[in-house]
Amino acid sequence: MEQQTVITSKDNSLIRRYRRICEDKRYRNTSQLFAAEGLRLVCEALQEGRCAALYVTESAWEKHAEELRDSLTTTYLISDALGKHLSETEHPQGVFALCYSTKKPLRADTLNRNGRYLVLYELQDPGNMGMILRTADAFGIDAVLTYQCCDIYSPKVVRATMGAIFRVPVIDVPPASTLRLYFEEKGIRSYAAVLHPDAKPVTECRLGKGCAVWIGNEGNGLPEDAVAACEEKLIIPMQGNAESLNAAMAAGLLMWEMVKQK
Amino acid sequence: MEQQTVITSKDNSLIRRYRRICEDKRYRNTSQLFAAEGLRLVCEALQEGRCAALYVTESAWEKHAEELRDSLTTTYLISDALGKHLSETEHPQGVFALCYSTKKPLRADTLNRNGRYLVLYELQDPGNMGMILRTADAFGIDAVLTYQCCDIYSPKVVRATMGAIFRVPVIDVPPASTLRLYFEEKGIRSYAAVLHPDAKPVTECRLGKGCAVWIGNEGNGLPEDAVAACEEKLIIPMQGNAESLNAAMAAGLLMWEMVKQK
Repeated sequence: MEQQTVITSKDNSLIRRYRRICEDKRYRNTSQLFAAEGLRLVCEALQEGRCAALYVTESAWEKHAEELRDSLTTTYLISDALGKHLSETEHPQGVFALCYSTKKPLRADTLNRNGRYLVLYELQDPGNMGMILRTADAFGIDAVLTYQCCDIYSPKVVRATMGAIFRVPVIDVPPASTLRLYFEEKGIRSYAAVLHPDAKPVTECRLGKGCAVWIGNEGNGLPEDAVAACEEKLIIPMQGNAESLNAAMAAGLLMWEMVKQK
Repeated sequence: MEQQTVITSKDNSLIRRYRRICEDKRYRNTSQLFAAEGLRLVCEALQEGRCAALYVTESAWEKHAEELRDSLTTTYLISDALGKHLSETEHPQGVFALCYSTKKPLRADTLNRNGRYLVLYELQDPGNMGMILRTADAFGIDAVLTYQCCDIYSPKVVRATMGAIFRVPVIDVPPASTLRLYFEEKGIRSYAAVLHPDAKPVTECRLGKGCAVWIGNEGNGLPEDAVAACEEKLIIPMQGNAESLNAAMAAGLLMWEMVKQK
């Protein structure tokens, strides 16, 4: 890459492609690519072999060539001005990557009978999604299953995952009535996280191996058909204001309970 | 208030005061006031008797007079244009309040020997602070003790607490070496949340009544003198990436463990 010319034009097709991948969800979907920004995130992408292309400003290359040099990845040098154009942050580090997405559809052999799964049903907030994926990574959850959620490859979610996006398996799943059949076939118990007064306190639920906890939309919770697809309703007992647990915090506590129980 | 004239000028001293309270941390401190925006938050403030003054746009008053009418609170009608000027959000509801702050310094009789406390030591992120206060409210934590943290009364934190700011006791505390004496006097056990490999897994800690968990800064964790002021170091066991638990999530899990244990 040393002899390479520096890209300076916003109209360069490579630059336009990066911006479009940031902005256009459908294009992310069809191209199977997403954007990652920042030295740390991009280094994690390189480490996991997930980089399709690197875009590095001249000044960032001077500082970080050692960390970023990768024989398998095409690197484009760009001007510092273009770095500002590509960036979604106020103080860009000048390091960008297009990364391969790996979200897969659910298949018969995806689920493991001893696995621990989180089902996110119509979750919409990118900050919550990022924090949930980050926590799923920390606790080694087997997979996060998403049904009609916000796009996990939007720049906001990717940034909020702090690198977990490259490690946590995320799987697109069919609606509740079909998903239930996949779980039943493997003998995986499903718990619907709800605020119903007749739900079982999480402390009394068997949440170890071979279980899935379902979390619903931030405002509306789980729809009835999703609750009906689960064997049991669970609740996190609260002493204060019930609206005070947000979806990411509730998901975090339930993942913790899943991994704590053997 | 029906006969009252509508405030229309940005230079009105009441309007300037509201903005200054939003923007100026020191002024918030000396005036013992903070700003809350949005119908729901302001209604919670009224319910808790914490409103010093209400600012309501003409169109918001038409819609919400019933909910906002309060014989004990002075209400100022403002023009819809001023509502946009006061707002920190993109789609203002036109409902604003100046609220009394209640953060107190630590005193000998503040702590309860059976209490459950969270100590936040140099925590800086407003989003984390908001989520922590929200979760402390849900779990009925006795008080959140803060040492050199971000201002809990900044508009960002207030918004992120979703109303918990009006309910959770928050107490300013002295440095670790002094705070430890207050805890010792009441026989309250202190645990430092750390990432040290020699720390005790939280599942083996006695975290019920009469205990305090200390959480440090997002980037640096707890400083050595704070760790030294605690009886024990605890760690949340992780299977994946240790950096993947953020401070708010860690605090949430530890509060959950505190209230779960009787």
